[in-house]
Amino acid sequence: MLKDTIAAIGPLDETAMADCQLRIDNLTKPLGSLHGLERLAVLMAGITGRARPRDLVKHIILMAADHGVAAEGVSAYPREVTPQMVMNFCNGGAAINAFARHAGAQLILVDIGVAVELPPMPGLYREKVAPGTANIALGPAMTREQALRAIDVGIRMARVAVSKGAGVIGLGEMGIGNTTPSTAIIASYSERQHTELTGRGTGLSAAAIAHKADIIARALAVNRPDPADPLDVLAKVGGFEIAGLVGVILGAAAGRAAVVIDGIITSAAALLAVKLAPAAGRYLVGSHFSCEPAHREALKLIGLDAYLHLNMRLGEGTGAALGMRLIDAGLHVLNDMKTFGEAAVAVAQDGPGALRQSADIV
Amino acid sequence: MLKDTIAAIGPLDETAMADCQLRIDNLTKPLGSLHGLERLAVLMAGITGRARPRDLVKHIILMAADHGVAAEGVSAYPREVTPQMVMNFCNGGAAINAFARHAGAQLILVDIGVAVELPPMPGLYREKVAPGTANIALGPAMTREQALRAIDVGIRMARVAVSKGAGVIGLGEMGIGNTTPSTAIIASYSERQHTELTGRGTGLSAAAIAHKADIIARALAVNRPDPADPLDVLAKVGGFEIAGLVGVILGAAAGRAAVVIDGIITSAAALLAVKLAPAAGRYLVGSHFSCEPAHREALKLIGLDAYLHLNMRLGEGTGAALGMRLIDAGLHVLNDMKTFGEAAVAVAQDGPGALRQSADIV
Repeated sequence: MLKDTIAAIGPLDETAMADCQLRIDNLTKPLGSLHGLERLAVLMAGITGRARPRDLVKHIILMAADHGVAAEGVSAYPREVTPQMVMNFCNGGAAINAFARHAGAQLILVDIGVAVELPPMPGLYREKVAPGTANIALGPAMTREQALRAIDVGIRMARVAVSKGAGVIGLGEMGIGNTTPSTAIIASYSERQHTELTGRGTGLSAAAIAHKADIIARALAVNRPDPADPLDVLAKVGGFEIAGLVGVILGAAAGRAAVVIDGIITSAAALLAVKLAPAAGRYLVGSHFSCEPAHREALKLIGLDAYLHLNMRLGEGTGAALGMRLIDAGLHVLNDMKTFGEAAVAVAQDGPGALRQSADIV
Repeated sequence: MLKDTIAAIGPLDETAMADCQLRIDNLTKPLGSLHGLERLAVLMAGITGRARPRDLVKHIILMAADHGVAAEGVSAYPREVTPQMVMNFCNGGAAINAFARHAGAQLILVDIGVAVELPPMPGLYREKVAPGTANIALGPAMTREQALRAIDVGIRMARVAVSKGAGVIGLGEMGIGNTTPSTAIIASYSERQHTELTGRGTGLSAAAIAHKADIIARALAVNRPDPADPLDVLAKVGGFEIAGLVGVILGAAAGRAAVVIDGIITSAAALLAVKLAPAAGRYLVGSHFSCEPAHREALKLIGLDAYLHLNMRLGEGTGAALGMRLIDAGLHVLNDMKTFGEAAVAVAQDGPGALRQSADIV
């Protein structure tokens, strides 16, 4: 399924992008003056293949899993929080529920590797590959075969969203301890030291951060993940939700849906996805800068912008939901503003403020 | 009116803020993990005096005026664009119309000093103090009496919004050439050179930026504005919309409404407002970082954060409208999430991730 999905990822629609850009350049505002929002609108044109995309259906796919490395004390929270939070998501009381509602996005919840058995709950896809990963400080997180199975789950979940009309898919995750494997993945591709990349997660003290950095160093030393083989990195120092998110990204790109990434965990998945399929990178949209140093590093390695500086460090897809609102704002600019011709406003005569004018506006 | 308004600006409601913070600290997320949004929610509690503010009424007050200094060629656009854009605002085709709709905000349009006579139009307040300022490169922009009258217009407009229930007021402006007086105001309070603070406005070339910096230097040399007397700075190198926005800020603060600032022009007004009435600073909320170097400097001088990095340079209140959406997001967190008690999720035992727990949650 992975190979076929990667093969199905097409280039952006350059014609739709050019038509979209032409309309934007003729709107009643100085050329390029809404920079970031304009770029988002043009990107959405390229992804959807429509010169004036609007009212895109939004989904957030949230993958939950547990991590053997949590036994090393790398998180401020006990492992039982993972299933409790999944139930909280199902009951609508968590941050991502509020954020998804606020963004007008459907939430797709997936148990892809929570350690305990969860009861059937409305809205929860039960796609457990295994009850949590093994401890990466001692050996590989999972087998290569499990990594491929988890990616397949993600591809299928992306297809569910695309089949429901999703044009934008936000990435979310839950998994106590999961900034540790994410940092290990990003460190595998970075020239920076793992100590510089290790952050406080959901709330570690300075001493606990140093301990976490030691665990990451041990995971890298024990497993020796091969950066030339992204599946090897994923299987050795990753997690089931990270593998699932790699699949979501590839499946969304194959289905011509934009993928809005969130914080460090989803960015680690995005980094692996573009290593597996560079064409998928064009479908990615950044959202916020979290407090995690490895998040910023992953964005840099992918070559992706982010827009919001709120010092958030929660995950779940909360930043992705805010990023979706910025895409909406870009599409409002594209669709709700008038062109100079429509509004009869004078244009700048020359220089960088000058406007192209054309009868061919969408 | 100015004196009475300043005297009416009260402190934030510390009790409401503490109650709001307590609820936020008990929500099912790591302590402080939604940092920026949490701070916005607590600030709104302090401003409104309600521990759980929600569904706040939003207005954007957009002041339009012309500038004598436009004759010096400091803008990429001709001066007739100011009234054309006001008509575009009235007809609903401009960027701010799309942004205000997207943010669920009412738009209040004010002609406070457009050079030409505008016909009566629905939704346009005609409060012209004079048909544009004088050229600041040659002498003062306006008399001190005119500055006071323009501030009074702004105070009255803020009262209109507050009387309609506004809890959040966004600032917008339109005025060809108005980054020049704004930069001159900010330079009057900055230790940085005016050449470092001068930006490309809506789209100047490098040569035109150098010319604009010369004009700003001349305006400062000719007028010698006294930073110890904010009204002097405003009258000598300001503009009518800037003076009006000073009034809006003070009137909003006196009416316990939050004020969301936009780019460089509204930030110059905010800087003068806090120089006139330091207590007004607590009612200010930043939104985006524009491309103008003086914008960043003004935020620093006021001591204000901003959240969005979109490289926008349009004005009109577009950034403020996006900022209002972040306030909404903060209030959704406050109101729509469950507490740990409500959701039965385990809490971290100690360290910075630890939670206060209390029966006194709002």
